[in-house]
Amino acid sequence: MRRFTFLLIAVATTAGLVAIIGPAPGHADEKSASYVTEIPQGYRDWQWVSSAHEAGNLNSLGGVLGNDVAIKAYREGKLPFPDGTIIAALHYRYVPSEENNKVFGEAQSFVPGAPTNVQFMVKDSTKYAATGGWGFGHFAGGKPGDAAFMKSCFPCHEKAKGSDLVFTRYAP
Amino acid sequence: MRRFTFLLIAVATTAGLVAIIGPAPGHADEKSASYVTEIPQGYRDWQWVSSAHEAGNLNSLGGVLGNDVAIKAYREGKLPFPDGTIIAALHYRYVPSEENNKVFGEAQSFVPGAPTNVQFMVKDSTKYAATGGWGFGHFAGGKPGDAAFMKSCFPCHEKAKGSDLVFTRYAP
Repeated sequence: MRRFTFLLIAVATTAGLVAIIGPAPGHADEKSASYVTEIPQGYRDWQWVSSAHEAGNLNSLGGVLGNDVAIKAYREGKLPFPDGTIIAALHYRYVPSEENNKVFGEAQSFVPGAPTNVQFMVKDSTKYAATGGWGFGHFAGGKPGDAAFMKSCFPCHEKAKGSDLVFTRYAP
Repeated sequence: MRRFTFLLIAVATTAGLVAIIGPAPGHADEKSASYVTEIPQGYRDWQWVSSAHEAGNLNSLGGVLGNDVAIKAYREGKLPFPDGTIIAALHYRYVPSEENNKVFGEAQSFVPGAPTNVQFMVKDSTKYAATGGWGFGHFAGGKPGDAAFMKSCFPCHEKAKGSDLVFTRYAP
């Protein structure tokens, strides 16, 4: 919370001029700008939901993990996800595996390279009521994304209304 | 075991003619042809090791999971993997996600499609002494791969000697 407050102050300070010449920000908007600012403990031990490759600029290969609440809901096909659900997306550079390709004799194998970021969706229908009940988190090198970046999460995830704002399906 | 015996009989029967005109199989070879013939229980609950995309003919997107022994060894960088290690590779068709791509506005998102097979490496340095201490398993639709296919596992994995015959690295 302290880190988040600091972030808000930093953004408020640097964005001061914009605030003066721009429209006055609505109070409702300010209230809704709550993101996940602490990395959920133990997420690397969670069970696997699925893998994904994002081509193009993202150039990412990732694993999506879920805490017990998430895995249970996924397996039962329960929508919306219940409060307490946390979904983690671990992202890495999408790189060819030189050592695998030597064995296979062709450039066919692509694996996770350097870690890029870890993203979280935390379901708390009260705390995150303004963003569909989900708190979004993004951490690169252990540090949370800035407020401008974090504002882009909800509008995009909102388009996945049919699956409670969650893009990732469970791989059986 | 029963399934494995049945498989051996079936292969022996259909391969009868080949056996007659081919060289007599060595007893040592027959002894070493032991594969994993039962799907290890509960593997879908195991922790995530990494993800991988195999392009080309395989056209596969997968998740690699490990039992507790495997995960501990991976995290400690322990080589060779101790007896009791089981590594599972869950493979799916590598397909574009139409629903994600609609949101992103471009064809960037690739996800697991239909499951194709699940493969296992089981470490038992006594039982599988002839194949580097590893028993290999391959299951498509719940059924084990045939003997001819299973024979191809070890010669390929043997090339990854530096990592105890295991291709997959742990994604941090």
